[in-house]
Amino acid sequence: MSRLIYADNAATTQMDSVAFEAMKPFLTGEYGNASQPYSFSRRPKKALQDARETIAACIGAAPEEIFFTSGGTESDNWAIKGSAFLNTRKQATVTSAFEHHAVLHPCEVLERNGYPVSYMWPSREGYITTEIFRKYINSQTYLTSVMFANNEIGTIQPIKELCTTAHRNGSLFHTDAVQAVGHVSLDVHDLGVDMLSASAHKFNGPKGVGFLYIRNGLRIQPYSDGGAQEAGLRAGTENVAGIVGMAAALKNNCDALEENTRHIRRLESKLVDMLDSSGIKYIRNGGAIRLPGFLSLSFPNADGETILHRLDLSGICISTGSACNSKRTEISHVLQAIRLEDSYAKGTVRISLGKANTEVDVEAIFKALTKIFRT
Amino acid sequence: MSRLIYADNAATTQMDSVAFEAMKPFLTGEYGNASQPYSFSRRPKKALQDARETIAACIGAAPEEIFFTSGGTESDNWAIKGSAFLNTRKQATVTSAFEHHAVLHPCEVLERNGYPVSYMWPSREGYITTEIFRKYINSQTYLTSVMFANNEIGTIQPIKELCTTAHRNGSLFHTDAVQAVGHVSLDVHDLGVDMLSASAHKFNGPKGVGFLYIRNGLRIQPYSDGGAQEAGLRAGTENVAGIVGMAAALKNNCDALEENTRHIRRLESKLVDMLDSSGIKYIRNGGAIRLPGFLSLSFPNADGETILHRLDLSGICISTGSACNSKRTEISHVLQAIRLEDSYAKGTVRISLGKANTEVDVEAIFKALTKIFRT
Repeated sequence: MSRLIYADNAATTQMDSVAFEAMKPFLTGEYGNASQPYSFSRRPKKALQDARETIAACIGAAPEEIFFTSGGTESDNWAIKGSAFLNTRKQATVTSAFEHHAVLHPCEVLERNGYPVSYMWPSREGYITTEIFRKYINSQTYLTSVMFANNEIGTIQPIKELCTTAHRNGSLFHTDAVQAVGHVSLDVHDLGVDMLSASAHKFNGPKGVGFLYIRNGLRIQPYSDGGAQEAGLRAGTENVAGIVGMAAALKNNCDALEENTRHIRRLESKLVDMLDSSGIKYIRNGGAIRLPGFLSLSFPNADGETILHRLDLSGICISTGSACNSKRTEISHVLQAIRLEDSYAKGTVRISLGKANTEVDVEAIFKALTKIFRT
Repeated sequence: MSRLIYADNAATTQMDSVAFEAMKPFLTGEYGNASQPYSFSRRPKKALQDARETIAACIGAAPEEIFFTSGGTESDNWAIKGSAFLNTRKQATVTSAFEHHAVLHPCEVLERNGYPVSYMWPSREGYITTEIFRKYINSQTYLTSVMFANNEIGTIQPIKELCTTAHRNGSLFHTDAVQAVGHVSLDVHDLGVDMLSASAHKFNGPKGVGFLYIRNGLRIQPYSDGGAQEAGLRAGTENVAGIVGMAAALKNNCDALEENTRHIRRLESKLVDMLDSSGIKYIRNGGAIRLPGFLSLSFPNADGETILHRLDLSGICISTGSACNSKRTEISHVLQAIRLEDSYAKGTVRISLGKANTEVDVEAIFKALTKIFRT
């Protein structure tokens, strides 16, 4: 196999060495249970507190508003079920049709329990505008959940405006920011969100750990019961190494945010320029306000799976825009939500560039696509 | 501070270097998302499958019966809520009064939702016998949950017999085996249990990862929704490094089970012999069938917190048998359940020896206790 060209940073990212180094002591000698009262637990306890402060500072929160979880999916499940189920009047939830399944499937659980949910359709450019939102929200809405940025097409939603509209109507507001945290600048207090989900492995931290921001004073059900950890809301011995690694990775990304963004945007433009000059027919999905490095590209009358496998043979990792099962190629719910024509949708791939990518990577991706599409 | 003498292995354990080494590749170069279809994800995917097989082999399960979780607390929450809430007739749950809070608190959630729960009182020796169980179980019992071994006094419950009794009455049977897995030989098919919870950091694996054994064919609600991982029952990008570390640690412990047990039992006897010859007045809680290394010792008219802190000054880590809050020392629910006299209960400590402990450690612990109690 050729050298690995990893362009699937929206699926997961390589862990930063600063994160690994930060974790090491807590995977070896500093193994004390952070909840025990003796001296040996002081360092892990302090490390947890430091991590909470670091993460809070990166997103403009107070430390006590950060709750450690096992990842983005848990954070989303907790935010949705933990708040909606508190509302015994079974008031409605509003979300979008192109959320991650970690939001959509918990919403289906709400529905099965008799809680109404409406699914907003985004614009064809991939945005939930306040105009769209106003058609769905009303005084009966208890919870709104709209993702910060879409995980297939990268479009960034107008969270601050949506949040203001939600609050005006008396609704809580949650955002799944799994794709955004560590990649764009964001401040929870400025945005006004009540809850925000994040996952460490999406920002060069370890897998199996994430956090949920919960605004001070917000009522939510515990996600797991059985211990005093995370203010009694998420029981279980703390994953000290994972949490410390997450904080180190986030700080590292946030400290270099401008530089990383500039670098990734340059690579992204280069790839787009090369494609545009090549004569290869394609469209790029989603409007211009999007995460750095996200390219959802649709090639007419092609097959996303085939493109993925052909690129894989050149050592290039990318994703499709469609989920395949053994029986048929399904168009992803995201591409359906933006009403992409079937002839394009089937030939969709997601290239997600990260800070570790280089011009050489982008040239190799272009070359590999050329081999497939240039006649 | 003196050299660390860690005798709190029931709270957490030091991770084995084989586990750390097994994790390393997946914390560095092998970062591929195990659910992606390209070649780069083959190794993480294979590692997950291998880990599942290794863990299954260690407890006599089939690989597809092992479901990875974020730890013992999640496993317990899932087992209790995920099965009881499937029973729309709201049939009863039977558990014991001295379970870990990771079982008791989810049971309280059942109660708040209108599902009746009965709490069996163990014998004064710390056992739930079938005689006791038969007083609580009836044809209306949907779920029984009894821990494999108690986390404060170490007593091992007659799980196979309890399980047979449960099944005869049509009840499902779950066991919280967090303290037992990796420390005693157990076979889920021989025991007959329907579900079994375990946590990696209790058997020299990493924190933040565990598993739930779910018998083939058992119906259970998903714990988190939003992805196809763990057969669609526990969504979220797999914590490959953590899972691989857990499997390596468990195999390592199971391979050396007899040797470790012999070593730990010898240390345990040594400490008991020294205490017995010293004239220090104490009782040892729990009957003789118990986990290796567990010593729940009660000193009359003493204070557990004080003993803990005095030992801490000598660099010795142990636990109390009581949870302290700022206002008063509370007797733990376990000591209450075995009806230990208050004058003893308040002066209770838990010493939990592990495979890394030495005779020198035990002598130091004895010496430190002597300083406190020898008049």
